[in-house]
Amino acid sequence: MEKTECHKKLMEVGTRLFSEKGLHGVSIRELSLAAGTSISMISYHFGSKEGLYQEVLRQQFDCFKEIHEIRERVTDPVAMVESYLLWTFRRHRNNPYLLRFYTSELTNPTPFFEPLVMPVIDEVIVTMAGVIEEGIRQKKFREDVDPTNAALALAGMVNYFFLSSLATKNLINHTPEKDELLVRQYLEIFTCGVGVPGR
Amino acid sequence: MEKTECHKKLMEVGTRLFSEKGLHGVSIRELSLAAGTSISMISYHFGSKEGLYQEVLRQQFDCFKEIHEIRERVTDPVAMVESYLLWTFRRHRNNPYLLRFYTSELTNPTPFFEPLVMPVIDEVIVTMAGVIEEGIRQKKFREDVDPTNAALALAGMVNYFFLSSLATKNLINHTPEKDELLVRQYLEIFTCGVGVPGR
Repeated sequence: MEKTECHKKLMEVGTRLFSEKGLHGVSIRELSLAAGTSISMISYHFGSKEGLYQEVLRQQFDCFKEIHEIRERVTDPVAMVESYLLWTFRRHRNNPYLLRFYTSELTNPTPFFEPLVMPVIDEVIVTMAGVIEEGIRQKKFREDVDPTNAALALAGMVNYFFLSSLATKNLINHTPEKDELLVRQYLEIFTCGVGVPGR
Repeated sequence: MEKTECHKKLMEVGTRLFSEKGLHGVSIRELSLAAGTSISMISYHFGSKEGLYQEVLRQQFDCFKEIHEIRERVTDPVAMVESYLLWTFRRHRNNPYLLRFYTSELTNPTPFFEPLVMPVIDEVIVTMAGVIEEGIRQKKFREDVDPTNAALALAGMVNYFFLSSLATKNLINHTPEKDELLVRQYLEIFTCGVGVPGR
């Protein structure tokens, strides 16, 4: 196996196995067997099992940084809430493993949670709290809304749709064709929820 | 160790270890060592490791059934949304392991997800969707609100507060003294979000 191919294969196998069993549930032997490489290749490319996990985690959460570009492009607070919802749907649709790493790091954090996961989650929350503050200044949102709590409520709505999808498969339709309709419904609930009555 | 004490000890140890490592990440030897019992005691009380996991899971999700009593007691839709929020805060506050089992079963389901977890989650969602439908009939909530999606949005808001708490520890105060204030804010965002404008 070529070096770049070996690196790619280990990342693929690491993503799948770590997402199912967590950092401590996967052995270096299991990883090398599943990737069809030797154990020494993990050391060569990533230093250790922890090094591979760190790289996988970095790749999973890399998309969170896109919030900055979106915020630069979209100035209106309501349009930004919509962009955030669409972007979050896209993040989960494009990456079926994200939710597993996200929930497992939040409920059973590894040593990589504080340096890698917490900062990018916080950046998104702080950015969206800023958007809501801007909406309050523009009198689009109510003055008594707490920007950070409202940003968390918004994140909760949209992330829970994906988190609960296995439990609700008989209750609602989860096909991506419905995403736009759902985004519109969440946008409506949220903007009315924080909006100024009668406007 | 007495039989009832041994049963209790195995349930305690099982709850802690399974919540950290999942069903497949814990061995029967590890469980018996941590509980200070013999392996045969696990077979005696629970049949197998899977039997112990099943009992732990049943105990964790037992509180979900309380929704029926609450619904019988509280008839007004807005008051019921508030009761649901308070109850969900209480469920997480009283049980620090619940969120781990909840997220791990939803993202990496075991064979016990379909018989034990899915039905109780669905009961809560269906009950709350019924409450929202009732609110629409009473003209308290908008006609264009989808009851099931709104019930999921509500569940998402409140569950995400607990799910994200480790990431947001520097952004907001998570002490239980703030729970009432938070419930009031979520209730306001949600009821305005699905409410009839100008009422």
